[in-house]
Amino acid sequence: MPKISVCYSPASYSLFAETDQVVVVVDILRATSAMVTAFYHGVENIIPVATVEEARDYKARGYLAAAERDGMVLEGFEIGNSPFCYMGEDVKNKTIVITTTNGTKAINVAKNDSSSILIGSFLNLNYLAEHLNELQKNVLVLCAGWKDKFNLEDTLFAGALSEVLIHKFNFESDCDSAIAGMHLYHLAKNDLNKFLENSSHRKRLKKLELEQDIEYCLTLDICPVIPYLHHNELKKLKQCVLKPL
Amino acid sequence: MPKISVCYSPASYSLFAETDQVVVVVDILRATSAMVTAFYHGVENIIPVATVEEARDYKARGYLAAAERDGMVLEGFEIGNSPFCYMGEDVKNKTIVITTTNGTKAINVAKNDSSSILIGSFLNLNYLAEHLNELQKNVLVLCAGWKDKFNLEDTLFAGALSEVLIHKFNFESDCDSAIAGMHLYHLAKNDLNKFLENSSHRKRLKKLELEQDIEYCLTLDICPVIPYLHHNELKKLKQCVLKPL
Repeated sequence: MPKISVCYSPASYSLFAETDQVVVVVDILRATSAMVTAFYHGVENIIPVATVEEARDYKARGYLAAAERDGMVLEGFEIGNSPFCYMGEDVKNKTIVITTTNGTKAINVAKNDSSSILIGSFLNLNYLAEHLNELQKNVLVLCAGWKDKFNLEDTLFAGALSEVLIHKFNFESDCDSAIAGMHLYHLAKNDLNKFLENSSHRKRLKKLELEQDIEYCLTLDICPVIPYLHHNELKKLKQCVLKPL
Repeated sequence: MPKISVCYSPASYSLFAETDQVVVVVDILRATSAMVTAFYHGVENIIPVATVEEARDYKARGYLAAAERDGMVLEGFEIGNSPFCYMGEDVKNKTIVITTTNGTKAINVAKNDSSSILIGSFLNLNYLAEHLNELQKNVLVLCAGWKDKFNLEDTLFAGALSEVLIHKFNFESDCDSAIAGMHLYHLAKNDLNKFLENSSHRKRLKKLELEQDIEYCLTLDICPVIPYLHHNELKKLKQCVLKPL
């Protein structure tokens, strides 16, 4: 049986790195939610870069580039990581370069070994679970966290994915962080937004008046796409069909 | 208002290090539970060392020395980290040198800055909370975890201590790991042992037939002592009186 593990921070990734496992990178508020949204709305490629300098270089070379730090769009860029920036005609069929506080860092941490990397969010959760079940490989959920610290929203996603993989698809787990995530998701699932009311990043975004973003990012299964990393670029898997639950 | 934060792994300590905060080191199964027990039963000093070599050196110089790795007593040592080894006449008034898989490592990680270090466990939880309230300083719970990974039992303790400090003594928290710990403790508190049934380290210890140790380590407030680190040695605070809850 394949197993599922959960890593709460990019800084701890080396403790969980294994060859031939599938790494699901998640940054619920908001990087990976924005990426999933972008592909669903027709973006062709996403190039995730770790630093603002890299994003600036790409921009100077004519790329559409997005940069977010601490919840805000950086000066010199038009877009950050609000999913609502990735729904329009202006991004359709484009390649977008993205750098964010935590999400793109997590992708870059994981890509230095031979694992396959997929992008997760509540928006594509059950599509992703179906696909992981088809692969039948060990899965690691890599939470982007907040500046290398644990955060609640990524943990809830990790718990939700663990629950589906373990209870629906018979995956195994010997990982305390997966167990904790499942307990927390069980407590939270009837109203994720309310559960997160006291969480640190939700408060941070609330100050920035991003309630609509939060509500959207906590919605289940509205984007039937699975982004994956291929030679430093994110693309979407060709087929993605959700079987009846 | 002082605040409480929780760090799930010694490897993440630097993200939480602050001058003038009190660090509570916890390794429920079993290092810090054994240390609290030892002081309650009359041990005079404990010298926590990070490596087996250091423990061997002390032993060669005539010290009583304890060494545990992966749940087992190491060859050449008579005692490991079972609390029941620290209750007899043979340890009374003695100085004991201890090295364990996770607990002593956490102490050594934290002692490299100027924070005060206290030793926590369920056995002295409310005594500790009272003392922290008297100090009125920021508190960091440093979970020893398992080989730098998150574990459930230390997180439950962190949640229990956070709950008392926040709800009884008006401490504040902006820390997602403290919030998660409180949720998990709330789910677990009626039967900690049952809640931990699937946890990784409880399974590990069960294989070694240490059920009695686990049951003991999950008992609340039976040891009215607070060990603290002073010049690389643990000693117990002179006074420790539990006020009515």
